[in-house]
Amino acid sequence: MRTHLDCFPCLVRQALDSVRLFCGDEAVHERIVDDVLQELLVMDARLPPPKMGQRIHRMIRELLGEEDPYGEIKERSNVLASEWRERLRGRVAQSEDPLETAVRLAIAGNIIDYGPTSHVDPDRVAGTIEHALVAPLDLGTVEELRRAIGQAETILYLGDNAGEIYFDALLVEQLPAQKVVFAVRGAPTINDATLEDARAAGLTDRVRVIDNGTDIPGTVLAECSPAFREVYARADLILSKGQGNFETLDDDSDRVFSLLMAKCPLVAGQLGCPVGSIQLRRGCAAAP
Amino acid sequence: MRTHLDCFPCLVRQALDSVRLFCGDEAVHERIVDDVLQELLVMDARLPPPKMGQRIHRMIRELLGEEDPYGEIKERSNVLASEWRERLRGRVAQSEDPLETAVRLAIAGNIIDYGPTSHVDPDRVAGTIEHALVAPLDLGTVEELRRAIGQAETILYLGDNAGEIYFDALLVEQLPAQKVVFAVRGAPTINDATLEDARAAGLTDRVRVIDNGTDIPGTVLAECSPAFREVYARADLILSKGQGNFETLDDDSDRVFSLLMAKCPLVAGQLGCPVGSIQLRRGCAAAP
Repeated sequence: MRTHLDCFPCLVRQALDSVRLFCGDEAVHERIVDDVLQELLVMDARLPPPKMGQRIHRMIRELLGEEDPYGEIKERSNVLASEWRERLRGRVAQSEDPLETAVRLAIAGNIIDYGPTSHVDPDRVAGTIEHALVAPLDLGTVEELRRAIGQAETILYLGDNAGEIYFDALLVEQLPAQKVVFAVRGAPTINDATLEDARAAGLTDRVRVIDNGTDIPGTVLAECSPAFREVYARADLILSKGQGNFETLDDDSDRVFSLLMAKCPLVAGQLGCPVGSIQLRRGCAAAP
Repeated sequence: MRTHLDCFPCLVRQALDSVRLFCGDEAVHERIVDDVLQELLVMDARLPPPKMGQRIHRMIRELLGEEDPYGEIKERSNVLASEWRERLRGRVAQSEDPLETAVRLAIAGNIIDYGPTSHVDPDRVAGTIEHALVAPLDLGTVEELRRAIGQAETILYLGDNAGEIYFDALLVEQLPAQKVVFAVRGAPTINDATLEDARAAGLTDRVRVIDNGTDIPGTVLAECSPAFREVYARADLILSKGQGNFETLDDDSDRVFSLLMAKCPLVAGQLGCPVGSIQLRRGCAAAP
């Protein structure tokens, strides 16, 4: 999915919000906003928005002199999500359709805003989860996914954020472990999950975990490591989590299933769904 | 009020929304967004946001080759607001405090979004009006305003948008006509009211109407005409309508009363009020 003009103000906004999380110096904020404006003027709009996200967050890390500014936020998200996972595992097992429930919870993990502060309102998290458990979802696609899981030899699960990865683990538990490869980002970028988070969430004990070799908050195949690309090429089924993966994946085969909340009007427009709705879709943004 | 970094994404967004109203050619949209990014990189952030608004809308008019692209929208707003005014005049007269009611309706006029299409939902307009009639408003400041009106020799009313100007006229009807000077913009800019709108709303028949000599969607005194500045300097009471005037006025005297809805988080922050609240305040953004 290319970067639309509507993404421009949003990217400036996101950069400003991000740098403010870690630094109170307005001169630094100005510097980042100026750098983003410059980048927007020269960027190739045929590239997906997460490519610009990569550049922005590289600039922020460089300017702050920190390799992983979101480290603490990710840790807190993991602790919180870990507690929720323990409470939710039983609900998956006892539900009428554990696969559907796990799909819903994996999407819920994508919605929860752990936020920059240590305080997260437990009622709001509970509300998000209960909403995802009952919100409209295409059950026909759940059936297609069930069949695809049964037929697949290799299932590649593209993770998204820290915290969220604990909810992904609940869905991974519904898959045949020996067939699953779970992929994380190759280096810290925003609050995206890396190998460290996959280990913390216990995924490394259960399935093969690889990293994609990049710091793009998405999956741009051309920039991923050869090892990742090989796994990708061989996978019969790809579970793509979150907007970043949805926007970046360039794959028009029907082996891709995207699980996400449509967080912005452009993605919602592409999916033909309301902003804020939860989606299990066959295909990604590149699909015809 | 200076232009904050938070205004940057908002200005890009507004420019894009504006040019799309009048032109479907994406190359033109890109051109405007690029021009705005360039301007943001070089602008003097000590200037208020409407100064940037002036530049953006000059660029849009130039690129479209139209002197007044909002002309039709303004006309439609005037027709609609005219109908509402007839219905509301009786409510002012019959209300317990006609001045307070007229202040509330003048602010309601600032809230109504006439939108780009010819269809405006009458229920929504009615809802906005009923809300403004009962929403919290500082009645102490209404009393101060009443006293100031009684004592003033010259009252300068700074208008804001077309459409809205019909609601302003209801408040003007509560003022001693011979003391009032009503000011409009000096040239078309966005949907701001000009002399033509003041004539359409019948204001020219009732009070002296002047223009401020600029195409800034606000009141930057240093750029206004000498004639306007003279009236401004002599006024004992200034009624400043809307966010654009609030953001631009550089006047720390207590003769300024601002009537507006706080439409953005920065203005709301400066006023210490919730976004979306209606406000009658003594002072403007320059006030200490």
